[in-house]
Amino acid sequence: MKFVLLFVLLVPLLVVSAHNAQETGFQRPDPNNARAMARWLVASNSWGVISTISLHLGGAPWGNIASFSDGPEGNATGTPYFYLSRMDPTPLDIEADPRCSLCLSEAPIGTCGTKDAENPTCARLTLSGKMVELSKEGDEGRYALEALYSKHPEMKAWPKDHDWRIYKLQIDNIFLVDYFGGAKRITVEEYYSTVKAVTLSTAM
Amino acid sequence: MKFVLLFVLLVPLLVVSAHNAQETGFQRPDPNNARAMARWLVASNSWGVISTISLHLGGAPWGNIASFSDGPEGNATGTPYFYLSRMDPTPLDIEADPRCSLCLSEAPIGTCGTKDAENPTCARLTLSGKMVELSKEGDEGRYALEALYSKHPEMKAWPKDHDWRIYKLQIDNIFLVDYFGGAKRITVEEYYSTVKAVTLSTAM
Repeated sequence: MKFVLLFVLLVPLLVVSAHNAQETGFQRPDPNNARAMARWLVASNSWGVISTISLHLGGAPWGNIASFSDGPEGNATGTPYFYLSRMDPTPLDIEADPRCSLCLSEAPIGTCGTKDAENPTCARLTLSGKMVELSKEGDEGRYALEALYSKHPEMKAWPKDHDWRIYKLQIDNIFLVDYFGGAKRITVEEYYSTVKAVTLSTAM
Repeated sequence: MKFVLLFVLLVPLLVVSAHNAQETGFQRPDPNNARAMARWLVASNSWGVISTISLHLGGAPWGNIASFSDGPEGNATGTPYFYLSRMDPTPLDIEADPRCSLCLSEAPIGTCGTKDAENPTCARLTLSGKMVELSKEGDEGRYALEALYSKHPEMKAWPKDHDWRIYKLQIDNIFLVDYFGGAKRITVEEYYSTVKAVTLSTAM
C-alpha cells in the first residue's frame, strides 16, 4: 500500500518535473546550481573574449572577441569551439602559447535586467585551459564546424582565403561568480557531469 | 568682399555642423573614422573583459568581466576607469604585473543587429597598457569615482568591506576591427585627439 501511495505521488511529480525540464532546459538555472549555471552560460552565449599571451605586445595579456559554439542547437556539449582566422593575432598567440581563457558574461543573454555586469548576481564565467586546433577532416573537427555553423550561419559565407582554423578549448579551470559570497569552484568533472541538471544533452 | 562671402557661407555651415555634432555625438561613427569608432566604443559600453597574467593559474592569461566608465554622462574622456574588489583575482594580478588589456565588443551596444560578434563589421576594440591604481583622495581618483558612479549608480551601494580600489587603464596600444580589411592601427595620440570628431568633451 505504501509503495502504491509513493507511486501515485511520485509519477505526477516526475511528469511535471520532466515537462519543466524540457521547457526550461535553456532557462537560467538557480544560482545554487553552480555547475548548471556554468553550462547554461556557455550554451546561451554566442561570443566571448579569448585572453592570450600576446606575441605582438611582447608577452602582455591580450583579449579578442570571438564567436563560439558548444554544440548544434539543442545539443550543448560544454566544450567551446571556435572558428578563427590566422589574419587575427589570436591564433598566432595560441600557436606560440596555447594557454588561454574564455570569459563570458550573462549580460548579452539579456537576463541581467538593469543590473551591472560586475554585480555578482549578473553571472560571469571564465574557462581556462589550452586551445587545441582540430583537423577539419577529423570527426571532432567536422562536429565542431557543424556546431559553429548551426549557431553562426553567416560563418559559412566568410571569405575562404582568410586561413580559418577550428579550435576547441580544453578546459582545466573554471571560475564562476553568480551570486554574493565570492567565486565558486567547479571541477572540470562536475562541469561535464552536470548535463542532466540543465537537460542539455551531450553529443560527444 | 571675398572674406565676407566666406564668412556668410561658413557661419551657417559651422552652426549646422555643431548642431549635428551635438545631436549625433554618441551615434555610431562612420567606419572610415577609426579613431572616432574607438572612442565611441569606449564611451558607449559599460563593461568589458580585463585580461591579466594570472597569479592563481601560474601565469596563464586570464579574463574577468569588469564594469567601467570613461567619464560622467556626456563627458567621455577616453580613459577607462574601474572599480575593482581585491576579493577578485584581477586586482591581485594587476599588483603582480600591471600589464593588461580591456576588450570590448559593439554587440552589447545593440548596433550590430543580427551580425555575428566576430563579423568585422560588428566593431571590436582592445585597449592595452598598464593598470594604475588611483588614490581615492587624489583629484583623478575623485573624478574617476564620479565617472563610475555616474554610469553605474548601483556601485554606491556595493558593500564597503570588499576592499574596492579605483584603477585607470594607461593605454599604450589600440587594436580596432570595425570593417573588412584587417585591424586598424590607431596611435594613443590620435585616440585622444579625436574628441571633436565625435563631439565627446574631455574633462582632464
